[in-house]
Amino acid sequence: MTNAGDVLAADIGGTNLRLARVQAGGHIVQEVRVQTQFSQLSGLSSEAAAQAIVNTISQAAKPLLDVNIIGLGIGFPGFFMGDSGILASSPNIPQLHNFKLAESLSQQLSMPVFAQNDALCAAIGEQSFGAGKGMNNLLHITLGTGIGGGLILNNQPYTGESGMAMEFGHLRVEHDDDARLCGCGHHGCVEAYASATAISTRYAEISGEKLETKVVFERAMQGNKEAKAIIESAGTYLGRAIAEAIKLLDIHTVTISGGLIGAWDMLHPSMMNALNAQLIPPQQNKVRILPSALKDNAGLLGASSLIKYRV
Amino acid sequence: MTNAGDVLAADIGGTNLRLARVQAGGHIVQEVRVQTQFSQLSGLSSEAAAQAIVNTISQAAKPLLDVNIIGLGIGFPGFFMGDSGILASSPNIPQLHNFKLAESLSQQLSMPVFAQNDALCAAIGEQSFGAGKGMNNLLHITLGTGIGGGLILNNQPYTGESGMAMEFGHLRVEHDDDARLCGCGHHGCVEAYASATAISTRYAEISGEKLETKVVFERAMQGNKEAKAIIESAGTYLGRAIAEAIKLLDIHTVTISGGLIGAWDMLHPSMMNALNAQLIPPQQNKVRILPSALKDNAGLLGASSLIKYRV
Repeated sequence: MTNAGDVLAADIGGTNLRLARVQAGGHIVQEVRVQTQFSQLSGLSSEAAAQAIVNTISQAAKPLLDVNIIGLGIGFPGFFMGDSGILASSPNIPQLHNFKLAESLSQQLSMPVFAQNDALCAAIGEQSFGAGKGMNNLLHITLGTGIGGGLILNNQPYTGESGMAMEFGHLRVEHDDDARLCGCGHHGCVEAYASATAISTRYAEISGEKLETKVVFERAMQGNKEAKAIIESAGTYLGRAIAEAIKLLDIHTVTISGGLIGAWDMLHPSMMNALNAQLIPPQQNKVRILPSALKDNAGLLGASSLIKYRV
Repeated sequence: MTNAGDVLAADIGGTNLRLARVQAGGHIVQEVRVQTQFSQLSGLSSEAAAQAIVNTISQAAKPLLDVNIIGLGIGFPGFFMGDSGILASSPNIPQLHNFKLAESLSQQLSMPVFAQNDALCAAIGEQSFGAGKGMNNLLHITLGTGIGGGLILNNQPYTGESGMAMEFGHLRVEHDDDARLCGCGHHGCVEAYASATAISTRYAEISGEKLETKVVFERAMQGNKEAKAIIESAGTYLGRAIAEAIKLLDIHTVTISGGLIGAWDMLHPSMMNALNAQLIPPQQNKVRILPSALKDNAGLLGASSLIKYRV
């Protein structure tokens, strides 16, 4: 069953793309998944890479198209210029600059298209349909291979002046000379302590075993002390970083998505303790940190909501 | 000379109050200063303290009142609930809670009255008339006995959900066990390294001489190495803290007011170096840090601009 007024939503990652038909209220009624293999774009020119992205998305969209679709919203990993749908740059596809992603797809598909940063879409999803539903202000954190985030202020997605707001993973939580090295080239970023990658690496350092993060979780839940200590430590570092954001933004609701929320019962207490220990007294005990209610669908449903902000 | 449409502006501190008549364009045409001595309110009940504040401000305003005044804007040290003019709390006058400062004065003076946090008023002043003029987004830092700040986002003052946004002075710049103790009770806050008080204290620790901050500046400018090192170190710590704010907010213009900008030529290079050293590469070299153009008048002129946001 489909209704007039449905939207398409795309959640685009480095290795695969999800495209769904979404009805009012955030109901996914049809979905396709295709491989994207953006790593194979690296040899292409800027124009050819852009064309390949447009073709991949529009091909994936075709089976879901009909006259009742009013538009397409896209979450894409990269920095967008405000709500223009122009991708200023993308760390994964460095040859792209000021790529008119939304406009190109709009011409190809003959419908309104909006595009925004993928982590900001996850924030929009949680605020529209998930754990942050009804909140005017929301700080959303994506815990995965890296750590990112998105910000809703005064009921609007906040992008920053270069589309680079909420580089949450690079907030600094250690300043010692021996602080851990982050993928960004700096030391002491929260991502170097609390991402899925960091948890796996830190467990390997003390146990000698290199395991997938979810296996580290399983060990922790079975009572393994080293695994438990690392997950609690990740919570402490996340709490420290969240505290810095609350000191600046005074937001009362934080939501977190990503695989790490599977270990919520271990993560949450240490996160809350560290958060309240860092805040100045009048800010203490005002902030809730909630696990995503939408899980893997946060970005996709947020992309569908891009339409509501623009149409 | 006065015009129809002038506003009154009040900048209220713990020991004195400035009240001015301000014309369009931020021109101060008349000003009075009176002592406030809020420390003497500490023995009073909540109601009596509130009444004393209203009386002090309205008495000070009387000589400046005439039929051409369209309203009064007030900058006050404390946390306000949004733009309601209700003071939720004030660290200096702890017995006050949810004090309807603007409404009480509006009844007393029979004109529209708006009130907001003093550091946010300084941000509004710089954005309206000063170093941040014309910027849609501005991060303003007040460097004084303590360190505070105000934020303008999308051309609007940003207060946060409890009026506690921009507790910039309590961003953490050291995490070592021996990080300096801050007045808030925590260790490692930027205020404990870079406020005027901290600079004086840190100079005393290495020189054995307890001097006023401005004397430490004079020594530094005369070539005293210890004094210079401490001011440059204060710049480094400020740059670190500004970096955290930029990672979250992606703002391109930062302004700084307060006595410490007297040492700008020593402060600015170390601040910029630390800032760019902490940012992720795509955010580097996009941010300007400017000294206040309004100096002591930033808060007063910002208070006058509260009228433009509401009338």
